[in-house]
Amino acid sequence: MINKIMQQSAEAFVSYRKTSAESRAVFLETIAANIESLGEELIGKASEETNLPAPRLTGERGRTTMQLRMFAQMLREGSWVEASIDTANPDKVPAKPDLRKMLIPMGPVVVFGASNFPFAYSTAGGDTASALAAGCTVVVKGHPAHLQTSTLVAGAIEAAIVACNMPAHTFQHVTDSSFEAGKALVQHDETAAVGFTGSYTGGRALWDYAAARKNPIPVFSEMGSINPVVLLPDTLDVNTESVAKQYAGSITLGMGQFCTNPGLLIAIQGEGLNRFLDVLSKEIDAVVPAKMLHKGIHKAYFEKMEAALNQKGVKLVARSSATPGDMEAQPSVATVEAGVFLEDPLLHEEVFGPYSLLVICKDEAELKAVWRSLTGQLTTTLMGTDKDFATHHSLLDIAPSIAGRIVFNGVPTGVDVSASMVHGGPYPASTDSRFTAVGVNAVKRWVRPVCYQSCPDALLPDELKAANPLGIWRLVDNVWKKD
Amino acid sequence: MINKIMQQSAEAFVSYRKTSAESRAVFLETIAANIESLGEELIGKASEETNLPAPRLTGERGRTTMQLRMFAQMLREGSWVEASIDTANPDKVPAKPDLRKMLIPMGPVVVFGASNFPFAYSTAGGDTASALAAGCTVVVKGHPAHLQTSTLVAGAIEAAIVACNMPAHTFQHVTDSSFEAGKALVQHDETAAVGFTGSYTGGRALWDYAAARKNPIPVFSEMGSINPVVLLPDTLDVNTESVAKQYAGSITLGMGQFCTNPGLLIAIQGEGLNRFLDVLSKEIDAVVPAKMLHKGIHKAYFEKMEAALNQKGVKLVARSSATPGDMEAQPSVATVEAGVFLEDPLLHEEVFGPYSLLVICKDEAELKAVWRSLTGQLTTTLMGTDKDFATHHSLLDIAPSIAGRIVFNGVPTGVDVSASMVHGGPYPASTDSRFTAVGVNAVKRWVRPVCYQSCPDALLPDELKAANPLGIWRLVDNVWKKD
Repeated sequence: MINKIMQQSAEAFVSYRKTSAESRAVFLETIAANIESLGEELIGKASEETNLPAPRLTGERGRTTMQLRMFAQMLREGSWVEASIDTANPDKVPAKPDLRKMLIPMGPVVVFGASNFPFAYSTAGGDTASALAAGCTVVVKGHPAHLQTSTLVAGAIEAAIVACNMPAHTFQHVTDSSFEAGKALVQHDETAAVGFTGSYTGGRALWDYAAARKNPIPVFSEMGSINPVVLLPDTLDVNTESVAKQYAGSITLGMGQFCTNPGLLIAIQGEGLNRFLDVLSKEIDAVVPAKMLHKGIHKAYFEKMEAALNQKGVKLVARSSATPGDMEAQPSVATVEAGVFLEDPLLHEEVFGPYSLLVICKDEAELKAVWRSLTGQLTTTLMGTDKDFATHHSLLDIAPSIAGRIVFNGVPTGVDVSASMVHGGPYPASTDSRFTAVGVNAVKRWVRPVCYQSCPDALLPDELKAANPLGIWRLVDNVWKKD
Repeated sequence: MINKIMQQSAEAFVSYRKTSAESRAVFLETIAANIESLGEELIGKASEETNLPAPRLTGERGRTTMQLRMFAQMLREGSWVEASIDTANPDKVPAKPDLRKMLIPMGPVVVFGASNFPFAYSTAGGDTASALAAGCTVVVKGHPAHLQTSTLVAGAIEAAIVACNMPAHTFQHVTDSSFEAGKALVQHDETAAVGFTGSYTGGRALWDYAAARKNPIPVFSEMGSINPVVLLPDTLDVNTESVAKQYAGSITLGMGQFCTNPGLLIAIQGEGLNRFLDVLSKEIDAVVPAKMLHKGIHKAYFEKMEAALNQKGVKLVARSSATPGDMEAQPSVATVEAGVFLEDPLLHEEVFGPYSLLVICKDEAELKAVWRSLTGQLTTTLMGTDKDFATHHSLLDIAPSIAGRIVFNGVPTGVDVSASMVHGGPYPASTDSRFTAVGVNAVKRWVRPVCYQSCPDALLPDELKAANPLGIWRLVDNVWKKD
């Protein structure tokens, strides 16, 4: 079954890779329109399968169709292919031949969607949209937690294939949710690359299968993180209330089910921190629990939270006062001293859901030690006043080593889709820190450069022809040009 | 020992990553000047160790210093950091924060140089130059086949560190040539990435060590290929003599000791091909053998060539008439029918040295089948007239799937250093087809994007400050700007 699907994907790739940027742009826009046409049926089904409320899902659907249209726009603008031309120079020793380079699609891409974003990072999400934009065919393994939603979205893509006259099997949806099916997809000879969003265990397993292949292939696994937030002393003194409220909101937003949930707060002991904790406690106390995405996540949340709370030196300091109902989370915050945290690897692990651990440090040196002890993160945040940044200037050197995105005086939840976004980061936030899963640059995961040497103009792709018929930005003899 | 070296590299990285682009440019230029200052001592030592003639080594030294200066120029121009800015839009729902992205160095890079390029792809070669340009510290494992040459070049780099006041240990040279030392370098916690140029066995082993780490790291191994050349019928008819002479030269250039040596010729049977083979034979017959790089390569060349020649259906059709002396190669060309080639995996393997196999096809369909059967290649070449390209148009679709560089009516040997060059390709030509080892883009292997969200202007790197103090090209709200 998997073999047939991948063979079909490879066959479709032969034709799909040759489609024009304009035709792929129309294809992506048609997918977006078809998803919108599914209307309330889609929102209802997704809400039923994921327990996410309709307004959240409606927003996420908007993000999904926006992403598809953003990649259409990228295709029309054209500079994403990184066209580069070095004209011949026969007088040089050795003679310089004419060289023209651009990015081309790698082949069939296998996508494993996320359970927490049934639209934006699932069937027609960022991985699928960027791969289809690149000219790669796509095989999505539908997420078992929202398989009916996934099937509805797959139908919207398949209808767009027909409407836009794209090759059959340009996109395929695998509903076999078994572990073996996923493994077979990654190991198949025709698979050129893999995109994954989910748990560390899942993402690492796929990486291992791909790396052990006879011909290893790239795997971009986005595996989440604890998104450390450094709360500096002056802002805790001056902005106690607002920072505490902001973070109570961020920790519990969507019941903490975001890869960018702030799972770790780091601060220096003091009066400001005590007052911050008082306000945070009251805010968390008042949070109304909601249902989590699925049973597996609900179970893992309570197990991992309890394991963390049972560690020596960990104190529960805030918890939602409502008794959680069936499948509901129980928003909680705990504290631990830096010395204990540094010695306990379990406390460095992600608890997926509304739970944060506040690490209390004696001084800046200890704060630095805690921050530096962390593995790779999707984000890290600095909350501070100008005075804080002046006093703790050396902290600014640490941040870029740790994370893909550094947030100043904000919350890490909320990932804007734009050219400057980085959603990735050093391992284990992702399996390759050189790429991003969000924004137009996500397309770079599925493309590779090819160089044409002394190619007759008529045989070149339009992107590289002398006349620049597509009117795209190109690097010509080391100068950026558009004419 | 390895542990101490990598710790020192990590420590140096903390400071070196903060050096300005201008100071790194001067550093690279100083390395180039220091290498030139080594004068004839360096050429003499390298010639002694590698058997390569002085003129070839002088040319290669020029390429090496040119590469260092090219990366200096890249640093001054500045657009390689891919600076991108999306300004805030509080009116959007959700509100768009200010996002600024650029590429930053990953950390200490371990470099394994090539035996066949003791300067340009070794100690101060493309991998080292691109990594130092990126802001990464570098640890080079000196190649055992030219360890004294490597030590001389390392001295030139170390002197530049002192002269330019760069952090101690920004560059380090490991002279332990054991397998264990190499393994320990790749497995060390502080190693952020690996560059390798050499054999398939070596490159794959390093990949496997890196992939199996607790935190996998990128490995760019360039592992050579057989660089298939398709000789089309009309050009064989019309340009018999010139094509045959060109290829006799390319097959035996530098005793075939280039990763881009044309090890496989593919053609359709006919009168033109017969005449081509006649001329090629005469040319090969007259080639004067020369010494190979080292004993290991010499031994492997004869063993692999003999194994290929002993395969069923393989006929030796041309061989240098001179009896090879000690350490010398014996330039040879053999033929085989396509049907046999397709069934015999051993004939698809690289024979490093002056040996090529010509695959004789019955028709275009068979030629396509042979071409498609190949694994990833650094290059593939099409020799054809306009008539050929018109007749065999569908062949042009195959080329980009196979190789990183497609050469038209030329030879694959000779790799120009420029922005449009791609020296890499699908596995097993390289371990990651998304990157190149030659040209300015080689720097992209050692950098990762980082995004600053709502960062106060004063705390931003110069590349991202509002005023654009470096005057570099940046993508600002999706528009390319330089002011």
